Amino acid sequence: MAQTRATSLKDVASAAGVSVATVSRLLNGTLELPAETKARIDKAIRDLNYIPNPHARRLSRGRSDTIGLVVPDIANPFFGMLVAAVEEEADRRGLAVSLFATLNRPGRELSYLRLLARNHVDGLVFITNHPDTQELAELINATGKVVVVDEDVQGAAVPKLFCDNFQGGQLAGEHLADHGHRRVLYVGGPQQMISTERRFAGFESALSAGFGDDLSLMRYCGDYTVDFGRAAARRFLDEGRPASAVFVSSDEIAIGFIEVLCAEGVRIPDDVSMIGFDDVGPLHLFAPPLTAIRQPVRAIGQRALSMLLETNWEDASSLAREELIPVELVVRSSVAPPMSA
Amino acid sequence: MAQTRATSLKDVASAAGVSVATVSRLLNGTLELPAETKARIDKAIRDLNYIPNPHARRLSRGRSDTIGLVVPDIANPFFGMLVAAVEEEADRRGLAVSLFATLNRPGRELSYLRLLARNHVDGLVFITNHPDTQELAELINATGKVVVVDEDVQGAAVPKLFCDNFQGGQLAGEHLADHGHRRVLYVGGPQQMISTERRFAGFESALSAGFGDDLSLMRYCGDYTVDFGRAAARRFLDEGRPASAVFVSSDEIAIGFIEVLCAEGVRIPDDVSMIGFDDVGPLHLFAPPLTAIRQPVRAIGQRALSMLLETNWEDASSLAREELIPVELVVRSSVAPPMSA
Repeated sequence: MAQTRATSLKDVASAAGVSVATVSRLLNGTLELPAETKARIDKAIRDLNYIPNPHARRLSRGRSDTIGLVVPDIANPFFGMLVAAVEEEADRRGLAVSLFATLNRPGRELSYLRLLARNHVDGLVFITNHPDTQELAELINATGKVVVVDEDVQGAAVPKLFCDNFQGGQLAGEHLADHGHRRVLYVGGPQQMISTERRFAGFESALSAGFGDDLSLMRYCGDYTVDFGRAAARRFLDEGRPASAVFVSSDEIAIGFIEVLCAEGVRIPDDVSMIGFDDVGPLHLFAPPLTAIRQPVRAIGQRALSMLLETNWEDASSLAREELIPVELVVRSSVAPPMSA
Repeated sequence: MAQTRATSLKDVASAAGVSVATVSRLLNGTLELPAETKARIDKAIRDLNYIPNPHARRLSRGRSDTIGLVVPDIANPFFGMLVAAVEEEADRRGLAVSLFATLNRPGRELSYLRLLARNHVDGLVFITNHPDTQELAELINATGKVVVVDEDVQGAAVPKLFCDNFQGGQLAGEHLADHGHRRVLYVGGPQQMISTERRFAGFESALSAGFGDDLSLMRYCGDYTVDFGRAAARRFLDEGRPASAVFVSSDEIAIGFIEVLCAEGVRIPDDVSMIGFDDVGPLHLFAPPLTAIRQPVRAIGQRALSMLLETNWEDASSLAREELIPVELVVRSSVAPPMSA
């Protein structure tokens, strides 16, 4: 490809016939200028396509005005929406986002982390969707200026941002308990991931609070995919529908699960109640509209970027911390009292 | 971030105690080696994390092993799935993908194109989702090694890859004509875009073939967004439902349109028949399951990458060409004969 050089403050200053300090202070908002001079500088900025960028400067002395974003499964609308939220926040702050989709493959994650390290980004938002590997944590710690989002990478001593998975499980459990479900099934992602552990813990705690020992709580673990949703539904049917209500812990799992139930003529909520998690897809148009825990995807994306920009990376003691964003219950029509009630 | 150097063929050769030519020819498949030597080289490749990459080498002498991908609206699952398909194909070929989401904003598109030019990618797959600007075409032509996908950028003299929009419109028109709909509405994207023009042209041609002059064909144009779908549905209702069938030309538009119809108690297909385009979302779970033209999203993504790698960029006369991938009709339950029939 043809090489072009980034427009610098100096180019703008020279085109406008003023000093670099004048342009810089105008952009900082620390200088008032005659309208005519300001117009000349504005025109030079436009003509040269210069993108002023105070935030990136704060991040890095060797500024690139670009942050990196590594996501697992970009075909999953949850991650698509999360990426869009980071991108919008970056746009608002005048930053570019260099995005890498790993297909949730550990080898590709490691390659991209190394590539980003070589490419001098000013910082990195990292999202994985599989149980963590020691190698990944080590590489993240070596890379520096990384915020881990959505799922944990254990051993990575960096700021972390998750939705409040425990609270989400609790809300789902309370909703099912309120409808009298004491034989329930949890269909979650990989067993070792915090989304699975915490959602299940919250779910169990709410149901136990409702029913004590008079509770049958089963759990199927797999991947956050449509395929696993289908497999889980088949197992549920093969086992003779051992629960009156199911908590499917992602939109993708829900899609596969409902697909199989529909095909087998099992009615929601008449035969089985169902509650989902994510609420990114058009669940409100489903037959029936699906009740779900909604993840604050936009808020997570925005906050991820602001954590990256606001962390004091010189202060090692402040790095390893965790922040949670609350979720909410969206009630639609997929939960009803159990048939036997 | 910490700097790391990419592992070279030379590093591998030196670790394995063989010549660079030996490693190179082994990777090319042009050399048979004793098992023990081959094992030593394989081990060095693994230990050093060297990623051999014949395809990237073909593309560029100054190989970066990375291609660029620019997409408009990453929150739209259509683009998410397209990106995943490019990424998978790149993974299969040992290439990295540097991804940029423009939010469909022309300024951000231009910035990313410039950034990619500076960053030495080996080639670029470019997708926009708004009517084209002259500036964009000029920048694409100056950048070189670009394949334009999904929507046209007029004036860009590069290989282009689209789904067969005309055929898709035709299939939709035939399906509605078969059910006796002669008062129909087309709800499409921006007027000047080829997806809109071609789908409408195909739609009109099929309906005209069916009904000649005894046809009422209306058209609303807007954006490929849920919001526009909602607005179009409100207009449709305000105008007293002037059609017995509606062709909504994207999943996003369909979601907004159906949402409003449902809220107003308009039944599909009893009151209004509906056919969609894209079929990326879980339309099969909608109430009712939506009949739609399915875009071959994975095939488009894979082919986009192979066009980029297989084009002879030295031969200027072969660059400006257009390739179409056929679409298909997926029949579900949202089209029925009109009520008056």
